[in-house]
Amino acid sequence: MTVYLVGAGPGDADLLTVRAARLLASAEVVVHDRLIDPSVWELVSPHTERIDVGKIPGGSSSQEMINALLVSLGQRYERVVRLKGGDPFIFGRGGEEALALRAADISVEVIPGISSAFSAPLAAGIPVTHRGLSQGVVVVTGHVRPGASFQLAAVAHPDFTLVILMGVAQRAAIQAELLSVGLAPATPVAIIERAWTSSQRVQRVTLDSLDRVEVENPATIVIGAVAALSVVEVMGELQVAGVA
Amino acid sequence: MTVYLVGAGPGDADLLTVRAARLLASAEVVVHDRLIDPSVWELVSPHTERIDVGKIPGGSSSQEMINALLVSLGQRYERVVRLKGGDPFIFGRGGEEALALRAADISVEVIPGISSAFSAPLAAGIPVTHRGLSQGVVVVTGHVRPGASFQLAAVAHPDFTLVILMGVAQRAAIQAELLSVGLAPATPVAIIERAWTSSQRVQRVTLDSLDRVEVENPATIVIGAVAALSVVEVMGELQVAGVA
Repeated sequence: MTVYLVGAGPGDADLLTVRAARLLASAEVVVHDRLIDPSVWELVSPHTERIDVGKIPGGSSSQEMINALLVSLGQRYERVVRLKGGDPFIFGRGGEEALALRAADISVEVIPGISSAFSAPLAAGIPVTHRGLSQGVVVVTGHVRPGASFQLAAVAHPDFTLVILMGVAQRAAIQAELLSVGLAPATPVAIIERAWTSSQRVQRVTLDSLDRVEVENPATIVIGAVAALSVVEVMGELQVAGVA
Repeated sequence: MTVYLVGAGPGDADLLTVRAARLLASAEVVVHDRLIDPSVWELVSPHTERIDVGKIPGGSSSQEMINALLVSLGQRYERVVRLKGGDPFIFGRGGEEALALRAADISVEVIPGISSAFSAPLAAGIPVTHRGLSQGVVVVTGHVRPGASFQLAAVAHPDFTLVILMGVAQRAAIQAELLSVGLAPATPVAIIERAWTSSQRVQRVTLDSLDRVEVENPATIVIGAVAALSVVEVMGELQVAGVA
């Protein structure tokens, strides 16, 4: 009768929280998104039921189906884990799931996870704040509803680091908007694909070539002076002199 | 000969990452800030040396002393853990520590932690992004260098959640700047003190009364429509009708 909304972090089971690892080990059912790392499943009993609700991007009815599924499971089981990539409350729609469960009188607990908003840059050796380079960080998604505008102009500023999640498909529009509000064409950009996996890849470019970078989801885009930093050694870094 | 920059998360040892817990158990020395939760020390061997470098706010030479200490320890020990509240790369000056260590040819590894930027709001039942209420999140510190300006105006927007860390002392200035750039006086504000501890306290007010709230550090200030939400039950929530 409790549904735990659990942040899975960036992937690797070592970056789960201690509490998340313990809940996974004792769950009766795990409801999960796509892209859960195999190492996470090693923590889960083979007797635990797993339900993959990996969503096709853009489907809005799919979220309602997930909410209904969680309510149904919460009524039947004592310990349901809803495992969500990153943190449940950062573009994870975890708030909506929590509200749906509470409306059905099902107990909800939320366990934070390591968000890729900060940890994907970290995996590339990029501190999103750094004295003299960045006063703070702005986190947005490139995945906007049809008809909705980005609003990037409202929050873009050279003294702040901009982190864009799920922005690969929109990178040309993001570039155009940032240039139009006065960000320098030479502003450093780092693109981190598959952060914290063995196939992690980091590309460093500048804003004026963002539209021409070849990149695949899942990827995190970091824009701002810190994107040129690499304060620790980085796995899978590409030297991108000019973009093809 | 490796210094691990480890995020301690919001406090409770259950919210360390699995990797952080393992490193703490095997460290020869732990160099830590103030405000590390007692539960974390239960993971550390009684034979491990602990060095508290809790800084007086505002000291700039203290960071250089910490860097020099880490270099010196890194040269003498195999496994040094530098334990930092939250995430090492979010206002933690971890980037500077990493650069100092690498300049001295000492191996550095960074382990992300749960940042209070997202987890303190979560502890108050606030998803920092929520469909229809928030397009993204802006994270800033209220702890600015003497003479430096806030730049809050550049990134404040009603469609985005603003999270301010270490902003308690500056709350009147923050309020004035946000009102001056057009944020509504009725904009919801939540203030979370001592998040994830047994003495957590949550106050909900509006922007026009932020300057009059009685609040103590450590606290996280959340400003925006989501600050009125409480999607899960919250420990230590105060009902603040008007502010005294």
